[in-house]
Amino acid sequence: MATGIEREMGRVEAFSDGVMAIAVTLLVLGLTVPAIGSEQSLASNLAHSWPEYFSYIVSFLVIGIVWMNHHRMFSLLVQVDRTLIFLNLFLLLWVVALPFTTSLVATYLLHGFDGSVAVAAYSAVSFMMAVGFTAIWSYATRPGSELLGPDVDPIALRSRTRGFYAGLVVYVFAFGIAFLSAVAGFILLAATTAYYAFDQLDG
Amino acid sequence: MATGIEREMGRVEAFSDGVMAIAVTLLVLGLTVPAIGSEQSLASNLAHSWPEYFSYIVSFLVIGIVWMNHHRMFSLLVQVDRTLIFLNLFLLLWVVALPFTTSLVATYLLHGFDGSVAVAAYSAVSFMMAVGFTAIWSYATRPGSELLGPDVDPIALRSRTRGFYAGLVVYVFAFGIAFLSAVAGFILLAATTAYYAFDQLDG
Amino acid sequence: MATGIEREMGRVEAFSDGVMAIAVTLLVLGLTVPAIGSEQSLASNLAHSWPEYFSYIVSFLVIGIVWMNHHRMFSLLVQVDRTLIFLNLFLLLWVVALPFTTSLVATYLLHGFDGSVAVAAYSAVSFMMAVGFTAIWSYATRPGSELLGPDVDPIALRSRTRGFYAGLVVYVFAFGIAFLSAVAGFILLAATTAYYAFDQLDG
Amino acid sequence: MATGIEREMGRVEAFSDGVMAIAVTLLVLGLTVPAIGSEQSLASNLAHSWPEYFSYIVSFLVIGIVWMNHHRMFSLLVQVDRTLIFLNLFLLLWVVALPFTTSLVATYLLHGFDGSVAVAAYSAVSFMMAVGFTAIWSYATRPGSELLGPDVDPIALRSRTRGFYAGLVVYVFAFGIAFLSAVAGFILLAATTAYYAFDQLDG
Repeated sequence: MATGIEREMGRVEAFSDGVMAIAVTLLVLGLTVPAIGSEQSLASNLAHSWPEYFSYIVSFLVIGIVWMNHHRMFSLLVQVDRTLIFLNLFLLLWVVALPFTTSLVATYLLHGFDGSVAVAAYSAVSFMMAVGFTAIWSYATRPGSELLGPDVDPIALRSRTRGFYAGLVVYVFAFGIAFLSAVAGFILLAATTAYYAFDQLDG
Repeated sequence: MATGIEREMGRVEAFSDGVMAIAVTLLVLGLTVPAIGSEQSLASNLAHSWPEYFSYIVSFLVIGIVWMNHHRMFSLLVQVDRTLIFLNLFLLLWVVALPFTTSLVATYLLHGFDGSVAVAAYSAVSFMMAVGFTAIWSYATRPGSELLGPDVDPIALRSRTRGFYAGLVVYVFAFGIAFLSAVAGFILLAATTAYYAFDQLDG
Repeated sequence: MATGIEREMGRVEAFSDGVMAIAVTLLVLGLTVPAIGSEQSLASNLAHSWPEYFSYIVSFLVIGIVWMNHHRMFSLLVQVDRTLIFLNLFLLLWVVALPFTTSLVATYLLHGFDGSVAVAAYSAVSFMMAVGFTAIWSYATRPGSELLGPDVDPIALRSRTRGFYAGLVVYVFAFGIAFLSAVAGFILLAATTAYYAFDQLDG
Repeated sequence: MATGIEREMGRVEAFSDGVMAIAVTLLVLGLTVPAIGSEQSLASNLAHSWPEYFSYIVSFLVIGIVWMNHHRMFSLLVQVDRTLIFLNLFLLLWVVALPFTTSLVATYLLHGFDGSVAVAAYSAVSFMMAVGFTAIWSYATRPGSELLGPDVDPIALRSRTRGFYAGLVVYVFAFGIAFLSAVAGFILLAATTAYYAFDQLDG
């Protein structure tokens, strides 16, 4: 029979997986069906909606990679406590907001200063998501943590913390770039995502 | 091989986790993208939408804490019966309605008496949610209950029942306050949520 | 280590639980926030929306009870084959359609003949859901079935099949009643649901 | 206690099941409730919406069969690595887009050239989904793969790879047919889906 601790870990992971799976799937609601009776052909309307597809793909990858990292992080843990559950909720709060900022970017990317504001909002939510990750990581790997399994080396893990802070800096930077060029800011966010994807594959 | 009882517990937890994960994620649909072509800038429109963000965060925490409490409560159980499954459905009925009352508050908070009605509706649904919790708890910890594990003390558990009734009173109180000031009523609900969050962390 | 058969059962249950959990939660999207700027007060608008709340509660219970029965049915099985998975998909096809027919009823219940059509559509989807259940049950308990555990008695189970056919008849009846009175037809559907809920509790 | 590898497999399956369960359930949002106050009766409006129901059923079966195949494929695996997780995300990216292309078809099927574009878009997303499947399959069954269990024969598995390429060809063909007749193209896609369903049942 599964122990209580196992069941608790399992439910936190299941809840997190559920939230991330739903958030990633709700992105499809940002792909809008052009209204019947438009003056333009459907093909032309779809072609003009490229920011929707672009932001859909970027956000899908962002949430997918958040899930992969969450997955990797939790595979190091043997138990969870309430602080960790609370930090995890904080992370999910921002993951769930991502479809909203994605729709902002999809709608406003090509609309001048409004596009800059949309990409800045996207960067801000990404930043908070990274804060959530950094907090979970720092808490789980802190000296004396009882959350890690006996076969992981906390010191080796903590050496990776720097990578989390680097992520924070990139999002601040993208926030600033957004005001020079919304498209450039969003491409920087996309590139950061791609970088983390490949880092994942190498690691 | 997992026993039937384990599988049954597992499915009730998985269904509940699923419903709560989806309800919490659907909250994002209450964050509206301002329509293109508004007279105001996107930044200004977003700033005026602060009740949406505020109610999103409050409801996210509410459902998160409901999930934490559900989680803790079910970790005391070793089996479920049909009455408990039915009470659990009753609880979920109100959890699922929360994104609706959240949108009511987000839309009407600053609209005079309509705001009071919105916060009162929110309080009413929160109250019913608390009724659901109290019913599950009372049923599971009743004298002679076969749902609890052998290593939990029903008397110690029943002493906590008072805390559940306190929650009921707060929601009735918030319902009344809403008609004096919608914002004050909603802040009271938010503060109650925060209180339960910290109680969780201490407990 | 979990065997392949256990994992396969687990995934079918998890997928079904997921679909039912999402379908039940999407019902909240049928609860509409009255548009700002209406001539009526929010309280009055909400009061006039009672068919939305009524149909929400009925459909929540319907899906909840479908889930309970699914749960009970699958707890008798020790394995699944492809035919069963396919019949299960057929059942889910109609479960997922329920939020749509719920919105039809919520919108049209009080609109004369359109209300009758809406309740008839609801009955028709409920009928198909019952067909799906009957098919799964008949297939799983057929003579020579290898899906049942060694400790269940197929003859005793098959004696319950009559109850499934009774359900089918009720939905046909409700379909007809809907054209006499939409509200009466929907109340018959609600009462049938309540009956199954209590049957569950007794069984 | 479950091993790390088992837990990792479990979370990938759970995430995939979650995403597919949500995508399949979101299809219901494509079934639109006719607006109150239409000149036509509800019955007439619903009858004219048959492309919505047709595309709903086709897409439900498509995602259901994708899920069955995903299920069968993963039942051959004993572990996952990061490349497989990434290929799986690629597959899910297209599965999640299916409700969007379903709505395109439901809205435009009977609208001349726009209908052709809608069915072509549906074919294109189906094609990319098939690419995702083929990639997962080819990667998992490649010579020297460590992902397969000891009791599966990689050579026998690789002989099935041809079937995956056949699927790719059908979707390219449907893309072309769509420009001759949108309805014919969509029926070809539906027939392909049905074929895979029966193939499943026989296999």
